[in-house]
Parts: sequence; C-alpha cells; structure tokens
Amino acid sequence: MKKGIAEVPGITCGTGFGGIKKTEKKIDRPDTLVIVTDEPSNFAAVFTTNDIQAAPIKFSKSIKGKVCGIVANSGNANACTGEQGLKDAEEMAKIASQLTGKEGQLLVASTGVIGEPLPMDRVKKGIEEAVKNLGKAREEEPARAIMTTDTFPKVSFREGNGFVVGGIAKGAGMIDPAMATMLSFVATDAKVNSETLQRALKEAVDVSFNAITVDGDMSTNDCVFLLSTGKSEKVIDDSNYEEFRNLLTEVLKELAYQIVKDGEGATKIIRINVTGAKSKEQARKIARKIALSPLVKTAIFGCDPNWGRIIAAAGAASTGIEEEKVELYIGNHLLFKGKRTDFIEEEVFKYLKENDEIVIKLNLNLGNETFEYLTCDLTYDYVKINAEYRT
Amino acid sequence: MKKGIAEVPGITCGTGFGGIKKTEKKIDRPDTLVIVTDEPSNFAAVFTTNDIQAAPIKFSKSIKGKVCGIVANSGNANACTGEQGLKDAEEMAKIASQLTGKEGQLLVASTGVIGEPLPMDRVKKGIEEAVKNLGKAREEEPARAIMTTDTFPKVSFREGNGFVVGGIAKGAGMIDPAMATMLSFVATDAKVNSETLQRALKEAVDVSFNAITVDGDMSTNDCVFLLSTGKSEKVIDDSNYEEFRNLLTEVLKELAYQIVKDGEGATKIIRINVTGAKSKEQARKIARKIALSPLVKTAIFGCDPNWGRIIAAAGAASTGIEEEKVELYIGNHLLFKGKRTDFIEEEVFKYLKENDEIVIKLNLNLGNETFEYLTCDLTYDYVKINAEYRT
Repeated sequence: MKKGIAEVPGITCGTGFGGIKKTEKKIDRPDTLVIVTDEPSNFAAVFTTNDIQAAPIKFSKSIKGKVCGIVANSGNANACTGEQGLKDAEEMAKIASQLTGKEGQLLVASTGVIGEPLPMDRVKKGIEEAVKNLGKAREEEPARAIMTTDTFPKVSFREGNGFVVGGIAKGAGMIDPAMATMLSFVATDAKVNSETLQRALKEAVDVSFNAITVDGDMSTNDCVFLLSTGKSEKVIDDSNYEEFRNLLTEVLKELAYQIVKDGEGATKIIRINVTGAKSKEQARKIARKIALSPLVKTAIFGCDPNWGRIIAAAGAASTGIEEEKVELYIGNHLLFKGKRTDFIEEEVFKYLKENDEIVIKLNLNLGNETFEYLTCDLTYDYVKINAEYRT
Repeated sequence: MKKGIAEVPGITCGTGFGGIKKTEKKIDRPDTLVIVTDEPSNFAAVFTTNDIQAAPIKFSKSIKGKVCGIVANSGNANACTGEQGLKDAEEMAKIASQLTGKEGQLLVASTGVIGEPLPMDRVKKGIEEAVKNLGKAREEEPARAIMTTDTFPKVSFREGNGFVVGGIAKGAGMIDPAMATMLSFVATDAKVNSETLQRALKEAVDVSFNAITVDGDMSTNDCVFLLSTGKSEKVIDDSNYEEFRNLLTEVLKELAYQIVKDGEGATKIIRINVTGAKSKEQARKIARKIALSPLVKTAIFGCDPNWGRIIAAAGAASTGIEEEKVELYIGNHLLFKGKRTDFIEEEVFKYLKENDEIVIKLNLNLGNETFEYLTCDLTYDYVKINAEYRT
C-alpha cells in the first residue's frame, strides 16, 4: 500500500458505503469519502471550464476563507440536476459538518453518472459510515472511495525539506483537461497562505492534469482541491516558493500519470514530447493535437510505426511548422528528419510491442520551447467500456 | 450506377491500373484517374490547411489561369516526400499532358499512404492506361479510381435550369475538415468566371465538407477541385449566383454525406443540429465538439440514450451556454429541458437501435443561429481498421 492524502499531518480520512450507484452488480468498495483537517485550513481549488457545471462545482466555487475538509461521493455526479442538485450538494456539506462536529465549511465533490438526482438517503448513510470510520481510511483507501471506471486507486506522496505533500485522484474516462478533468484532493502540512496556494496549484496543474488526455472529453465535475493544514513548522514564502511548487508538481504529475495509465481500455501510455518550438503554446498545441488523434492512438495500439499520422497530426495544429525542419523519434529511433529516414520498421515495431510506455519525440527546430503531453492508446476495450457503460 | 463528374458536358474521364499501392492483396479497381476538359476551363480549388502539405497540393496551388483537366492517383499520397515528391507531382501532370495532347495545365491530386516515394514507373503505367481509356470511365468508375479505405464510390449529380453540376469524392478516415478533408473533383457546364467559381466553392464547402468529421484527423492531401467547362449556354453572374451556389452546395452535401456514411467502421450516421445559438460560430463550435466526442460516438454505437455525455460535450466547447435553457432531442424524443425530462429510456433505445441515421437536436435558446454537423459512431471496427492499416 502506498501513502496518499491521509498520511499528511493534520488530515484524517474516513470512507463509507451508501449504495449510491444504481446497479445490479455488487460493488466491493466504498462510495463516500470524508476528509477533515485538525484545524480550519487554507485551501486552493481549480475547476472544470465546462459551461455545464455540476452542483458540487457550483457549491464549492462559492466557498471563501478556510475549510475544515472535503466530502465526496462516487456513483452519481450530481450534474444537470438543477435546483435540487444544488440543495443536495449543500446538504452533503451540512450533514458531514454536523456529524464531524466541525464548524467550518466543507468542500464538496461528486463523480459518476450525469443527470440522475442524488439518492440523498443513501448519500447520508454513506457519510454517516465515513464519519464513524474517520481515521481508519489510510493509504489507498480514500482513493478507492472516489473510483468509478477506474481499475486502481491513484495516490502520491512526497517528502520535502520539513514538509510533505500527499494526494489522491480519480479518473479514467472523459479525460480532457481545461483546468482539471477529474477529481483530485491534495494536502500539505506546510504553512501556506491562500494566495500562494492558489498560484502554486495553478502552475502545477498546468503541467500535470492539464497536460493529459484520454479521449478529449471534458467532464462537468472536474476539480482539484489543495489543503494546507499547517501542521509542520515550514512556512512557504517567496524564498522557498519554488521548492513547494516543485514538490506539489511532482505529486500532481504522479497522479496524472496514473490517470492516463488507467485510461479506459488503454494498453500503453504515450508520452508526447514536443521540443524546438517557437513558443510554449505552439509546443502545447501540437502535443495536444497528436495526443487527441485517434489515428495515432490506434496505430500505437497496433504497434504500427506510422510516423505519417504523427506528422499529419502535428501539421493539423496549424501552428506553422516546417516539414523540412521536423525531426521525429519513436523511442530512440529517428524516423523522420525533413523526410523519411532509412529506419528499420521491424525495430520500431519491436520497440512498440515490447514497451508499455511509448515515447514520441518531435523536434520542430524552430526555437527552444517544449511541452510534454501524456495520453494512452485507443483500443477495442475503450469502445466496449463506453458503448456498454449503461446498457 | 449513378451519374458523377463524367456526365458533365465537356468532361471526359479515363481510369487505369498501375499497381501503385505496395500490397500483397489483389486490388480489383483502378488506381489512376485522368479527367480532361474539351477546352481550357476556369477552375476553383480549396486545399487542406494542414501545415504539412503533400507535394500534389503544393503543385496544384501554384497553378493559375485555366486548366485542361486533373490527374490523380490512389495508393500513395506523395506526402512528406521532399523535393523528389514535388518533381514527381510535376511529372504526373507532364505525362498526362503529353499523352492527352492537351497543351494546358493539369491539376494533380494523390491519396494513400504518407511518406513513401511515388513509384513513378507504375504511376506512368497507370496514366498511360487511363489516357487510352478516356471516355470509357463513366458514372461511378472515376470515383472508384480514387478509393483507398472507402467501401463504395461517392458520386453526385444535379440538373439545374440550363446547367448541371456533377462530382465525385473519396474519403473514409482521417476526416476532419479545415478546408476539405478528402479529395473531391466537381464540374459544371455552366459558364462561370474564376472569381465567382472560387466564391461559390468556398461557400458550398463551408456547409458541406467543412461540416463533417469522422475522427478529427486532418489530412495532408485534402483538396476540392471545381471545373467550369462552359459547354452550356448558361452564364452565371450576380443575378443567378445563388441558383448556381445552391446546386453546387447540394452536390457537395451529397458527397459529404456519403463520406460520413462510409466513415471507417461506422454503423450509423449522426446528424447534429444545433439551433438557437447567439452566433453561427457558437453553433458550429458546439456541433463540432459533440461530433468529435468519442463518448457520444461510442454511446450511439451502443444505442445508449446517454444525454449527459451530449450536454457535457456541448458545455466543453466553452461558448457560454446556459444549462437551464438547453433543450435536447434525440430523434423526436425530448430528453432534456433545463433538466432531465421524464422520457422513457426504452423508447429512445429503440429509436437508436432501429435507425441508421440518428438526429441529435440541441436548442440553446440563446438566439437564432444554427449549424449542422455530420459524423458517425465510433466502433470496434474503427479501431480494427486503423490498428491494422499497415501491419
């Protein structure tokens, strides 16, 4: 078992099972998570930029000041649920607050099917159980409570100089970040003011959760919450901001990696590394276009060194790349340098066949900026999972 | 057999087989097409906006004035082929020009695998055969010569008042237009000057080829050529411009429809009709985002009335839609009106199951602008076709 958010000093977690998801299948994991902080804590948050925002997103966005925890459920997204949905999200916070005896505010998050009203009796049962279990949910257990189509819990933990950062995440489909496209709850015991916390979170999200895609579909429920319990003596200010931001980035990158690894139906992670760009934005656009290309993703699934599809996708970003300057590597194999090289197809096929993580390097030779995107291959199982999600 | 470009007065077509595609499978259709006009003709063209442009695109873009025809091949895209590729494209035009005895210029187009040099001996053989066969290729035969993963030839023909428009197209994968994402050759016998021809073509392409997507992948070889042979007495000017543009649009829409119908692995066409938008651009962005969503496309394949995915995709376009105003229909079933309606899932399932063409209507209730996009479902066979394209 690996450490996650529960191992951050000042954080206590409990999970419960309310039976929130309508299903005939037996679910052998919790569906409710309550996280509390010893003392009211500074927090930061980033939210989905989808026009359609789930009730818990609307509710959590309205929270200012300090919070004393998070209450979350899986199995129902409480999205497109109108006025009742908003009341239900509020109610979730209220129930958790009353049962834990915490007077401060709680952030709320939900994930699961869109458009079904929350079954509040079951949600209440889940929260009651989670509060009773406070302290018992450790390591990967809190992450299990927010899984939906995920096949494994996602946790990360790092120790810095005098402070730690630990977090959990969920996500496997509908992954396409334009903020954050999943749920992730992260905490640190460092003393960080809200403004610094928000800045660090945004910067870390931009190169982690906002640099992955599974299917280009952005969810209505995405959010990342970051809590600072202040339990350690470490105070973050301008002098050590980067130290904090970098450790936070490591944790978010590890969580983001796990989300892609668990991409629906995925057999391989694809790391798309664009270098030599005129601007970071150009590098990002091209990396993203390649990461979204079904033709590239199916080719990697088929272990086909089809460099033409990669170059075509890069060009489709319409950022002004120049064919004669482009260099393309798959692994260490140089396939294209202004034109096709004399690479040996069989060798690249072998690399694609034998590795679970495929590295595509594209050097534009136009400048010095870079961006890296993570995605996964597109397989029969992606179609299977999503064509049969509810039927 | 249906009429196409060969039935436009002033147009003559021939097809040949050069054996251009490297394959062990037997190909039972031609791979080379020569189209000639009786007299030098005005023409218009739109090209892919991909940064990476195939040699025939570069060559055809350089042509000004009148042309006396088109020479095209399938089985090899002549893309990412450097200087040699450009020479080969020029050579194709030259060979066809010499053999036909036409002194004017010829447009050139290629489609097929990217990055392999054109086997010019075979291309030459194909052109020789096509020129010998001039006049024999009628109805669907010219379209067969430009097929790759297409499963049927795409043709369209319309009669107007004193003039006709006829065309052919190819395309099944790598379909995402940002100009035109396939090959299409269209002709009219009306007398139209180059400027009017170009304007009509652009307007017609915007609502036909630029309003379809199969997989969001834009090709390096896309182009639409429109020839005016002037064989009829009909002169197009300001007074009858719309009559001409509308007939042209009908032909391009019919060709575009056939491309989506032949979308790789597709079992259903999805017609996405966005209404009540503040601007055409908003309607287009939302329609396109839904059309590109793998979650929507797999749900339709699975006959799952998963309206939440459609609403989430619409919101992901980030154009400022308002959940409480949105109305969503699948077929004639109203599924969402500010919130989920009490529609009967079984009935919508039945509609999805029993129809090959699925209509999704999304009314934003924000204004009066509309846009319609065509796409197809995402199936196991899409993955199969593209994971095994070369292996």
